[in-house]
Amino acid sequence: MFGELLENVRAVRPLIHNITNYVTANDCANILLACGASPTMTDDAAEVEEVTAKCGGLNINLGTLSQRTIPSMLAAGKKAKELGHPVLLDPVGVGSSAMRTNTALHLLQEISFDVIRGNISEIKTLALGSHSTQGVDANVEDQVTEENLPRTLEFVHSFTKRTGAVLVVTGALDLVVSAERAYVIENGHSLMGCITGSGCMLSALTAAYITANRDRKLLAAAAAVSAMGVCGEIAAERMGSLDGNASYRNYLIDAVFRLDGNTLEHRARYRVM
Amino acid sequence: MFGELLENVRAVRPLIHNITNYVTANDCANILLACGASPTMTDDAAEVEEVTAKCGGLNINLGTLSQRTIPSMLAAGKKAKELGHPVLLDPVGVGSSAMRTNTALHLLQEISFDVIRGNISEIKTLALGSHSTQGVDANVEDQVTEENLPRTLEFVHSFTKRTGAVLVVTGALDLVVSAERAYVIENGHSLMGCITGSGCMLSALTAAYITANRDRKLLAAAAAVSAMGVCGEIAAERMGSLDGNASYRNYLIDAVFRLDGNTLEHRARYRVM
Amino acid sequence: MFGELLENVRAVRPLIHNITNYVTANDCANILLACGASPTMTDDAAEVEEVTAKCGGLNINLGTLSQRTIPSMLAAGKKAKELGHPVLLDPVGVGSSAMRTNTALHLLQEISFDVIRGNISEIKTLALGSHSTQGVDANVEDQVTEENLPRTLEFVHSFTKRTGAVLVVTGALDLVVSAERAYVIENGHSLMGCITGSGCMLSALTAAYITANRDRKLLAAAAAVSAMGVCGEIAAERMGSLDGNASYRNYLIDAVFRLDGNTLEHRARYRVM
Repeated sequence: MFGELLENVRAVRPLIHNITNYVTANDCANILLACGASPTMTDDAAEVEEVTAKCGGLNINLGTLSQRTIPSMLAAGKKAKELGHPVLLDPVGVGSSAMRTNTALHLLQEISFDVIRGNISEIKTLALGSHSTQGVDANVEDQVTEENLPRTLEFVHSFTKRTGAVLVVTGALDLVVSAERAYVIENGHSLMGCITGSGCMLSALTAAYITANRDRKLLAAAAAVSAMGVCGEIAAERMGSLDGNASYRNYLIDAVFRLDGNTLEHRARYRVM
Repeated sequence: MFGELLENVRAVRPLIHNITNYVTANDCANILLACGASPTMTDDAAEVEEVTAKCGGLNINLGTLSQRTIPSMLAAGKKAKELGHPVLLDPVGVGSSAMRTNTALHLLQEISFDVIRGNISEIKTLALGSHSTQGVDANVEDQVTEENLPRTLEFVHSFTKRTGAVLVVTGALDLVVSAERAYVIENGHSLMGCITGSGCMLSALTAAYITANRDRKLLAAAAAVSAMGVCGEIAAERMGSLDGNASYRNYLIDAVFRLDGNTLEHRARYRVM
Repeated sequence: MFGELLENVRAVRPLIHNITNYVTANDCANILLACGASPTMTDDAAEVEEVTAKCGGLNINLGTLSQRTIPSMLAAGKKAKELGHPVLLDPVGVGSSAMRTNTALHLLQEISFDVIRGNISEIKTLALGSHSTQGVDANVEDQVTEENLPRTLEFVHSFTKRTGAVLVVTGALDLVVSAERAYVIENGHSLMGCITGSGCMLSALTAAYITANRDRKLLAAAAAVSAMGVCGEIAAERMGSLDGNASYRNYLIDAVFRLDGNTLEHRARYRVM
């Protein structure tokens, strides 16, 4: 099933508008090309609405956030939604400053995101930041394990219901959660944590998948997460004795370039809950 | 002949000032180093004139254009021309927004560029944007083929006469056109379209070639385009069964690093028209 | 001795805040991950104090300096020092414009840097820019050789005394100098000059080393410089006949990822003076 969604990306070749950070922009552009999509990266408030109107989907990433780009994110996000384009939010580092948290919450208020992708800490900050009482939610641990999985899913599920977005929570276990269903995905490799931008790249990839599969966003997001994890595994298998994280980054993008629907079908490991 | 121009770059080691985008800046810097030139990348209006004065050539690239850097492009461009430095324009994505188109047209008005490099759509936007009647020009297709080559050359030729710049139009066939002559270059590989920044890198490389060969800009631009195409071919020959676009990007820059005049002479494929 | 300092970085896993340029930010992030540290890269004045407070050390790099980020550098630097965090300055390209030189001198005045890393020209600009009489200092050549080593060390030594910072001067010979002592380090490879960002990457790495070894900053900086040089050698040994500077960059980061204390001990080449 995931394989078909991957092949749709290669067939549709969606053009994805990225308002993103300067640390991983190049990797995000290359991973979009690797999966069969096309990137455009512009962030000036004076042009983002026009640019995003020419694209199929929008990926908003808060890394290296600046006051200059906050209005661009708002304007592009609203325009994209107005046109019915899928819009993804990657709230990088939310919680590490008031500006960052307030920006993320403001974006959540103004834009009805299709997908939000972050680690569990970022998702907690988003969920708890927007209402004053922490209650049960504060008990969600900062690492998703088999043991705390039920309670984490319940927490993510309630945030999904509140925002209407598919939530993608990445970690040792990856969760892809809608109001109705959750995919728990077990693909991936610990080396993915040794390169910068593996989260940003997954967000870009997910934006491509949901844009090429607009009627099946939950499934498309789950397929993107699984595809990224499978590629992380393939890249790890390729590591030689002298290779380190720089080669691993290349192998990861290479694997996305080579991945086909059959391989994804064959290697995807997930549960539906 | 191209070989000699390449060797001049290695001998002169020109310092190239780049006002460019944050997506491909690293690749542009590395390809400049690979060909024997040196990069400097600064974009603040308060210092670009001083910086460009210390360089030999200037490369202006509109990717990730922002209102902050438009005055920098104008100031640096004027200063560079005042000092007789070769100046290149890469009008990335022109036509995708009014800000982008207006900026490109304003730059064209204020700065007498030595070389303009873009794909045929970008060049069409530049050419048609600057006068109201479209006439024959609008018939130029968005892809250069053997069939439409004569009519495309005529179109590019007339734009060259109007601007005084050498025009570099890249695609499946690459055109390098001055008021007197045209090179049609057949080097290159389709994988070059699978990485981000192959156009930006070519612009940076071309800026180095015209700076080290200031009296033969048409020939220097043609040599740079052919060199990039040859390196695209060499990189493609090196691809292994697990390699994808990330490895291809590295192989491409590696090939520029290794390319010598003899190899370029031997592998260059072009017609003069 | 250097080996122990390296292992401390892997044990402490320091979080390093980088206010840096968009050309080499990705490489700096990956080299920090390679050595066992973690990067964060934010540069907006509205959040840098909060972000740096959550980190262990701060790396300020003037590449692609803009008026927007100057206040961020000042605010983050002051906050970091207030909290006792090690702070490093990489005055990229100082001397190439008044804005750049004035910014560097202003930063020096306001922030008591723990380490300053640059090439000899940059260090000379810093040293001579801050007092009007040039005297003997102006005689320091722009390349450090065995022959001019005593006179260069004397010059660097006097600047160290004035600023209180450990000075790291990189070139064919690398100098790491405090008020009491100097390390002259002979590791490294000429290919390091063929990639963009080898200086920026060393600064990021040094910030990680001094943060994980706060009580031995001179030694930690010397260990970082030696480690980078050793990795430059290891990367050079790995070069194949088709490899160029793009592969070299990957091999260099890979080598940092693989480097252990024993190898560093074994391969470090330096004199204490």
